[in-house]
Amino acid sequence: MRRWNGWGDEATEFPLRASAVRFLRQRIGKGRPLADADLDQVIESVPRSRLPEHPLVDRSPEIRVRHARGQSLGDWLAMRSGQFGVFPDGVARPGDSDQVRQVLDWALAQGAAVIPYGGGTSVAGHINPPVDDRPVLTLSLGAMDRLLRLEPENRLARFGAGTPGPALEAQLREHGFRLGHYPQSWELSTVGGWVASRSSGQQSLLYGRIEQLFAGARIETPSGSWRLPTIPASSAGPDAREWVLGSEGRLGVITEVDVRISPLPEFEQFYVGFVPDWEQARELARRLAQDRPSLSMARFSNAEETRTQLRLAASPLALSALNRYLSLRGCGKGRCMVTFGASGDAAFCRAAVKRASALVRAHGGVMIGKSLGKKWEHARFRSPYLRHGLWEHGYAVDTLETCVEWSRVDDTVSAMENAIHAHAGEGEKALVFTHLSHLYPQGSSIYTTYVFRCSPDYEQTRRRWWAMKEAASDALVACGGTISHQHGVGRDHRGWLSEEKGTRGLAALRALTAHFDPTGQLNPGCLVAEEDRP
Amino acid sequence: MRRWNGWGDEATEFPLRASAVRFLRQRIGKGRPLADADLDQVIESVPRSRLPEHPLVDRSPEIRVRHARGQSLGDWLAMRSGQFGVFPDGVARPGDSDQVRQVLDWALAQGAAVIPYGGGTSVAGHINPPVDDRPVLTLSLGAMDRLLRLEPENRLARFGAGTPGPALEAQLREHGFRLGHYPQSWELSTVGGWVASRSSGQQSLLYGRIEQLFAGARIETPSGSWRLPTIPASSAGPDAREWVLGSEGRLGVITEVDVRISPLPEFEQFYVGFVPDWEQARELARRLAQDRPSLSMARFSNAEETRTQLRLAASPLALSALNRYLSLRGCGKGRCMVTFGASGDAAFCRAAVKRASALVRAHGGVMIGKSLGKKWEHARFRSPYLRHGLWEHGYAVDTLETCVEWSRVDDTVSAMENAIHAHAGEGEKALVFTHLSHLYPQGSSIYTTYVFRCSPDYEQTRRRWWAMKEAASDALVACGGTISHQHGVGRDHRGWLSEEKGTRGLAALRALTAHFDPTGQLNPGCLVAEEDRP
Repeated sequence: MRRWNGWGDEATEFPLRASAVRFLRQRIGKGRPLADADLDQVIESVPRSRLPEHPLVDRSPEIRVRHARGQSLGDWLAMRSGQFGVFPDGVARPGDSDQVRQVLDWALAQGAAVIPYGGGTSVAGHINPPVDDRPVLTLSLGAMDRLLRLEPENRLARFGAGTPGPALEAQLREHGFRLGHYPQSWELSTVGGWVASRSSGQQSLLYGRIEQLFAGARIETPSGSWRLPTIPASSAGPDAREWVLGSEGRLGVITEVDVRISPLPEFEQFYVGFVPDWEQARELARRLAQDRPSLSMARFSNAEETRTQLRLAASPLALSALNRYLSLRGCGKGRCMVTFGASGDAAFCRAAVKRASALVRAHGGVMIGKSLGKKWEHARFRSPYLRHGLWEHGYAVDTLETCVEWSRVDDTVSAMENAIHAHAGEGEKALVFTHLSHLYPQGSSIYTTYVFRCSPDYEQTRRRWWAMKEAASDALVACGGTISHQHGVGRDHRGWLSEEKGTRGLAALRALTAHFDPTGQLNPGCLVAEEDRP
Repeated sequence: MRRWNGWGDEATEFPLRASAVRFLRQRIGKGRPLADADLDQVIESVPRSRLPEHPLVDRSPEIRVRHARGQSLGDWLAMRSGQFGVFPDGVARPGDSDQVRQVLDWALAQGAAVIPYGGGTSVAGHINPPVDDRPVLTLSLGAMDRLLRLEPENRLARFGAGTPGPALEAQLREHGFRLGHYPQSWELSTVGGWVASRSSGQQSLLYGRIEQLFAGARIETPSGSWRLPTIPASSAGPDAREWVLGSEGRLGVITEVDVRISPLPEFEQFYVGFVPDWEQARELARRLAQDRPSLSMARFSNAEETRTQLRLAASPLALSALNRYLSLRGCGKGRCMVTFGASGDAAFCRAAVKRASALVRAHGGVMIGKSLGKKWEHARFRSPYLRHGLWEHGYAVDTLETCVEWSRVDDTVSAMENAIHAHAGEGEKALVFTHLSHLYPQGSSIYTTYVFRCSPDYEQTRRRWWAMKEAASDALVACGGTISHQHGVGRDHRGWLSEEKGTRGLAALRALTAHFDPTGQLNPGCLVAEEDRP
């Protein structure tokens, strides 16, 4: 059964190694475990539903608890403390687009706010019920998880919007295809959610972002159904698909998604190497991005991330052997880990891997055997579980991400990391580390993780979290970065949107949402709101 | 000096070969030359300007004639007959964004319609003054043709929006870079126009469409300046750049454009081959598109286009030798010409060319030496001049284009070509031929050319042209195609937009334009209008 107050299935656990706990204690002090609330207690705290009965709507307290929050650290603290604040008044689980239409019309007529819900994996408050007088209906697409149409000749597939990553790939695999979109949340997140939040997957170097994979959709808008056809390319005015990408539920409910698929790769492998320092890592990243290297993924960890990842993942013995070897080969304390992969035609991939390995060496680095690459492959969807292991020992973890041009990468990484350190709290420290993982000829994404020990109570912990997140968000936007390269805006990031869109862009976005949703009932407060700072 | 009533410079001519004229006569009958109007006569017909004086606005009749029309066949017939119907009341030629702001504010205050003007190369009526009571100001960006900023590390360049293709590439070449965007209109069209009309270039397989090359912009909107920053990628809501791409002047005047650039290629070469029939050509195209072939361009002519192109370009002697050779090698009367090219790293390109050549052979085809490829390269921007050569002999030529999925390519080509044949007019014939030139894993563009002899007068010629264009447009939209893959919507294609956007998409587009331009003064009638069929 899926956890009601955390990530993934209850049966799946990845506890911390003792050596990892020692490392954390040494770096940021002894953890302070906080007591978890009990599901039964939380269920008792759920108020009476403000929605009337409807055959497609479940108003029972437990299901309302289980759909009240996403996976941001703020959500986590709310769930763990049991202080949810607000719950949806009911959860609908329609089986097809017609039922979505039916329940959407009903909810709009009730004056309810409607929150489209995919996998519930948002880390930006996309699915959190707004606090106001209106009842809230959470509309889960979870029952719409099937392949609806396959066109092998056109490399197209249509899915129910609620299809999660593993079910989507399994259904394609039967026919010899894959989508190739692997966000960190892949186990639980859905194809409709990927579109609505403009997500990006680990192998974006080859398959592109969801923008490149999204071919068409059916959307139930307040004024009726809207089918976006799957035309390969067009110059007939602005592309309406691009209004839907990142619309975060504000224009309507995405019920079916057409995606561009690829044949299963003949070859797929991941590799790990190390370079002596960050300067080399960042230059290597830029070089790989600008040389059309035909890799499917590449990731560049800074020294602190390299150190931390290895401490969390490897036994002390193995680690010390590795470190000795790397030091001998010229990668000392400042060493940075490089992970890359290739997928597709075998001969093509082998040539790409050879070229990339040569570039690692040309940057003073060294390639390690395939074992670490395999390790990365097997563990690549595990990061969200890490929060559980840390939490047990009294530590909290969160991430922040952006995208900037190459010339701004270093300043932005510094500004983000420094802001977090500076706001860790009186007498407290944070462990902060960063990697680059989505590369473009023009620039790179930046993904920063920070671990800190909990305060003695939830409210203080939450306040420190927000202080770090807010300061780092201010810093990255000041560096010219986007407030999100892959997590979206939701309710949490709204305040940092105007720098990117401009006041004119934000006003236009409001005009667009108001056009589709004149009564403001579709995911209100998400993405844009009237009170946004100009 | 640039022609006032046709394409390109007055000094540049490409007359038809005698053998080509014989070919046309045999296929569609003896041409009927129509008499051209005289510039002086047309200038005399220009009415008094309805705009007051302004230091940045030229109201002289000749400049108003020279900015009244684009390059559609309808525009051509208007210019050649001297029946312009309507002229702009003045032409502004601001030197920078601030002057654009100044003249835009002035024109809006005058109640004028404002038509942003790049290279004047529209073939869809983008820049034709609307016929109504308002004065019309044509706002030419032609003086804003400089490189404004170069960021080699970030592979970015900023240009004045009025920079035409050759000036843009020349300024980049000095620094070792290229944009790589080569629409057929490249000699005259501008970077701002490419963005506003969502254009696509010959080497789109490698460099992408303008959507992929467009990084940011400055736009003067009625309510003020709007700077779209150059963030490499973002999930922070819908991408505002995608509202501007294809906006056709309806949101504001694009004054500066940031583009993503590439280093000058180490290697660039084009090749020609032939396959026995269309079935093989189309399958080869699909295979090349879906196998990530790393070519920069590929073009697949059907049998009629192959025949016509060779008749127009080659001497009868050379042609007959070629045909004998091809027939011996299995490419008989149904033979289809395949042109492809590769650009970039030499080793990479050679491998790609080898693979593509092997695929041509695997489809029963044969590769020809490099001479035809070089010929294509040298002649690739010449097609617009062809209209002059044909016109002198009493023939008119026009093109139509769309994009559909692979499974629909054959039906769409047939439907378009048949519709044109069926509407050539009582007792008249059209020469109709087609190629595929922009390939996607999902489908292909379709580009159809039709040549017909003029009627005894202009009005009949215009009516026959529109009957063919209208029937083919109805046909391609009925096949699920876009009304334009690379020419845009303008005023001429508006009637076929609703199938692609849906009524809801069109209504949203209207809401967006109304938001930016509440008084409806920016390029009114272009892209969307209130009277569009639902």
